[in-house]
Amino acid sequence: MTTVALTLLPAGRTLHVEAGSSILKAAHAAGVDIEATCGGRGRCTSCRVKLVAGAIPPPTIMDEVQLGDALVREGYRLSCQCRVSDAVTVQVSPPVDDRTFQILGGERPEGAPVPVRIEAGIAKAVVRVTLPAEEHHQTSDLEAVLEAVGGTPEDCAPEALKTLPAALRAHGGEVTVATFGSRILSIEAGDTHLHKFGLAIDIGTTSVVSTLLELESGEQMASASSLNPQAVFGGDLMSRIAFAQFDAGNLRKLQTRIIGLLNQHVEALVRDSGVPAKWIYKVTIVGNTCMHHMLLGIDPSHLGLAPYAPVMRHPLVLSARELFLKVNPEARVCFLPIVAGFVGADAVAVALATRMDETPEIRIAVDIGTNGEVLLGSRDHLWACSAPAGPALEGAQIRHGMRAAMGAIDRVALAGGDLALHTIGDAAAQGICGSGLIDAIAVLLDAGVIDWTGLIELDHLDRLPPPLRARVTKRGEERMVILARPGEAGATQEILLTQDDIRQVQLCKGAIASGAAMLQHVAGVPDDKVAELMLAGGFGNYLSIRSALRIGLIPALAESKIRYVGNAAALGAQMALLSEPERHRAERIARSIEHVSLAAHPDFQDIFVDCMNFPR
Amino acid sequence: MTTVALTLLPAGRTLHVEAGSSILKAAHAAGVDIEATCGGRGRCTSCRVKLVAGAIPPPTIMDEVQLGDALVREGYRLSCQCRVSDAVTVQVSPPVDDRTFQILGGERPEGAPVPVRIEAGIAKAVVRVTLPAEEHHQTSDLEAVLEAVGGTPEDCAPEALKTLPAALRAHGGEVTVATFGSRILSIEAGDTHLHKFGLAIDIGTTSVVSTLLELESGEQMASASSLNPQAVFGGDLMSRIAFAQFDAGNLRKLQTRIIGLLNQHVEALVRDSGVPAKWIYKVTIVGNTCMHHMLLGIDPSHLGLAPYAPVMRHPLVLSARELFLKVNPEARVCFLPIVAGFVGADAVAVALATRMDETPEIRIAVDIGTNGEVLLGSRDHLWACSAPAGPALEGAQIRHGMRAAMGAIDRVALAGGDLALHTIGDAAAQGICGSGLIDAIAVLLDAGVIDWTGLIELDHLDRLPPPLRARVTKRGEERMVILARPGEAGATQEILLTQDDIRQVQLCKGAIASGAAMLQHVAGVPDDKVAELMLAGGFGNYLSIRSALRIGLIPALAESKIRYVGNAAALGAQMALLSEPERHRAERIARSIEHVSLAAHPDFQDIFVDCMNFPR
Repeated sequence: MTTVALTLLPAGRTLHVEAGSSILKAAHAAGVDIEATCGGRGRCTSCRVKLVAGAIPPPTIMDEVQLGDALVREGYRLSCQCRVSDAVTVQVSPPVDDRTFQILGGERPEGAPVPVRIEAGIAKAVVRVTLPAEEHHQTSDLEAVLEAVGGTPEDCAPEALKTLPAALRAHGGEVTVATFGSRILSIEAGDTHLHKFGLAIDIGTTSVVSTLLELESGEQMASASSLNPQAVFGGDLMSRIAFAQFDAGNLRKLQTRIIGLLNQHVEALVRDSGVPAKWIYKVTIVGNTCMHHMLLGIDPSHLGLAPYAPVMRHPLVLSARELFLKVNPEARVCFLPIVAGFVGADAVAVALATRMDETPEIRIAVDIGTNGEVLLGSRDHLWACSAPAGPALEGAQIRHGMRAAMGAIDRVALAGGDLALHTIGDAAAQGICGSGLIDAIAVLLDAGVIDWTGLIELDHLDRLPPPLRARVTKRGEERMVILARPGEAGATQEILLTQDDIRQVQLCKGAIASGAAMLQHVAGVPDDKVAELMLAGGFGNYLSIRSALRIGLIPALAESKIRYVGNAAALGAQMALLSEPERHRAERIARSIEHVSLAAHPDFQDIFVDCMNFPR
Repeated sequence: MTTVALTLLPAGRTLHVEAGSSILKAAHAAGVDIEATCGGRGRCTSCRVKLVAGAIPPPTIMDEVQLGDALVREGYRLSCQCRVSDAVTVQVSPPVDDRTFQILGGERPEGAPVPVRIEAGIAKAVVRVTLPAEEHHQTSDLEAVLEAVGGTPEDCAPEALKTLPAALRAHGGEVTVATFGSRILSIEAGDTHLHKFGLAIDIGTTSVVSTLLELESGEQMASASSLNPQAVFGGDLMSRIAFAQFDAGNLRKLQTRIIGLLNQHVEALVRDSGVPAKWIYKVTIVGNTCMHHMLLGIDPSHLGLAPYAPVMRHPLVLSARELFLKVNPEARVCFLPIVAGFVGADAVAVALATRMDETPEIRIAVDIGTNGEVLLGSRDHLWACSAPAGPALEGAQIRHGMRAAMGAIDRVALAGGDLALHTIGDAAAQGICGSGLIDAIAVLLDAGVIDWTGLIELDHLDRLPPPLRARVTKRGEERMVILARPGEAGATQEILLTQDDIRQVQLCKGAIASGAAMLQHVAGVPDDKVAELMLAGGFGNYLSIRSALRIGLIPALAESKIRYVGNAAALGAQMALLSEPERHRAERIARSIEHVSLAAHPDFQDIFVDCMNFPR
């Protein structure tokens, strides 16, 4: 085996890799994160690197297709395609800064409590235990505790026994016994009954939100949100399933990643709130079926193959110890139930939070995300389908796309015959995020730059106001709109919206819109029978409803019928955390939702093609 | 911090240790095993090393007391007491070779099955599962399996889900479902119903025996036995508790050691039998309370403090995964129940195996071991007490003591006016083991060399036959009997029986004999009411009953009433493994045994002093 030196900038780390390895695999094997949204299949540009020293290998066909001639000539390559045969030095794109990531965490407006009657199911009883005094006793520490609190030895979690003798003797026999139902989770020295906390976790394909709540008042103690670290192995579900497929080692990597992140969240929440991890006794987890299975280490291979069967659907309850989650080892970790392979606990949580199952009128919930879902129904019946939008609205597979971080163009308007850009944090423009993309396309549709099929029109440019006209151009075979030139909005280089970018957004919005259209079709519900449309999801709140309507992302309802409901999946997790009756309602919801499989439906193809186009 | 080089022979490894560290601690910290029977307190000689290069530190008072002047002058030191301040090289005593260790494993005589009707509780059902065929399905792999075998999703161990999809599709839906009660442990591809195995484990203070059994026939597939690797941290329970006391790190070391050994046993059994570990679905574990708590990582501190309360006593059932035991991850690990702090699951297993709880006549069982137990009773009532014999009969704390390994003097007789020695394997004599010690003392008592108080008589040597007379001597203040001179029985150096050795055996046999005497006293059972005395324990079978009677190790019953029952604790574990009714009988036994605390009894002191002496 010949090895060659591969140096990765900016870290400056040199790896000695087998000649012929792809840069992406070599970097991942060495624990260096390079994002690979498509799973390293040459289908996107996220893993691109720039070769800055050494012999630059010839471009592959994928390099040409994805990066274009100009970038290829500058030394850019897709690291998933690029095999090293001689010593090279490459510049890895620095990852997006998580800390400024504009995602809707679990936060609610000031003073807005989680809308449930609190009944979390965690009880703490303070008792004084009489210890055996003489040696002929026939008892044990545990039996002495049970004498005071009731129950049988089998009710006690073995973990609670490890430190029992010391706890029992620290305060003359006074202990606090934490229980969940009849299960004894923890036996603590002295009186700790005031300390009861819980964690609600929403694991999305792209982002993960954890919220620490006090279990008596519902008070939010702290919240943490991050990008899902599994994304380096694939941005969408199918890429990630392909990575895990039939390879226990890869599945283990995905599982370890997400558990590692959750433990980082626990650390951050503990630090921010001052609440010790041992006082976290209950955890609720929502996420789509794939995230659910990967977190549990369940082989997701067949989630990606027709008929897309999940391995399990019931509301699993584990101990934190079993999941290697560093809260109280016997904390109950409650997974919300699943409906189908692509309609997961996150969809159930959206229904739970929006109470769609309780209202008489028909409503629609659209949860926008890399793996979105659409729900439709009322207390009489609920339908749900998945809307595999892909990560375009999160900035992936878009030429100058980026996540909604500092410097992202998040709003676009037409003013004085030219584009007016707004960036997050009013910082220098670095790229464009989902809400900016939707705005830009809506504005360009209104101006006639883009036609209803999504084509950038070059034939009638003279009808445009001159400043806008100057932005529409064709380079080589590629049509594009220059959103920002160097110097505009602080940009240091051109920020473009290409014809391909528009196609990506069309695929994305087509998935969501056709999901809603299909459910309406299956349920026989025309637009005028829809009482309300709820926009949910991490960045739902940052989206312009008017632009979303203009591009046909959502059904053509009156604007007054549309409202933001924020991160409803995360809210659902919090409700199930604070209320056992709500958690049990989630089970009833999961059982009652009718799953509509889009691809299997004979009318789907027509509806999807129709939804790909923009409203005329 | 100044570091100095410490080189350990025979391994030749050099450690750089902090100046002033004890050799024992430095070696343990580096993962080098040096046995420390007393827990590193300078109370025994097991951790002695010989300094062969470098500056030899002056002896401590403990060196002088334990090793004596001669050894100290030869460069021997107790490694627990010896602090290094300059570079030194020391010779560590090579450990006893485990492989020739003559301990009674789980083996029974050819053709002697475990005496139970087999009903292990593990069931395997072969079913053909119908998988969902179309995409509108509302089911999951697990639900499809449950349709075929019955039960609820909550019955299924989460671990069984991880590989379920592949198993379900490997043989067209044919799977074998392994259950224990209603719990689904494993779902396996194809028909595996013929493969059902279990593991019975007996964890003693000094030795550990594991036996692999087939769960339908009871056939023994393989057996493994080893020394308990915790012994390096203390040979008896109290030393080991002291090591663990209030120090979670030390407790963790003890736990890790024993789990590591059990996994080595699993590996060996798998290798010897060809049975894959995944087909081991049930494990039973017996051991004294301290071994039980340490295996579970339960703080044993208060086991060593009056009133010696155990932390729990009930029959715990865990998954193998929770214990990090590398059999089927969901195998049920069944701990037999406990009676009291010093009467553990091993005593319960002895009662189970001997069926003392079922017979009308009164019987006594003496389980000889470092932490022995005595049981007395019938179906009407059972009493039990602990007999903390210490490790003398296992060769520890005896000048030339050794375990029952190759070359140990295991039988001693008087022939032709001189001692006649037998060694294990007829190998060159290296030292003396427990059965040899008991024989030697019995012979010397008969010959009048030792009087009833245990003193080596020097005043009336002329009454002895000359060859024996020449063996009795006094060096300095120390009386001793020369068992073997260089050349005799192949010995390369003198093998001595010192006055101190005799005192150690007296302490040991005093503990056992007074246990039996106390139970007889408490229960009001004179010798003539005892129908049978059963000698149990790892080396019970190698003991001369006549010698045991002669030295008063056991009550003075007719020899015909005494029989060997072998390693009854290990047999009890096997019975509970093969039979759920037997396992449940163990629970009833544990609840019915009356624990007699010797030390707390007002008459104990007199009885113990009496039992220390030899029968006149």
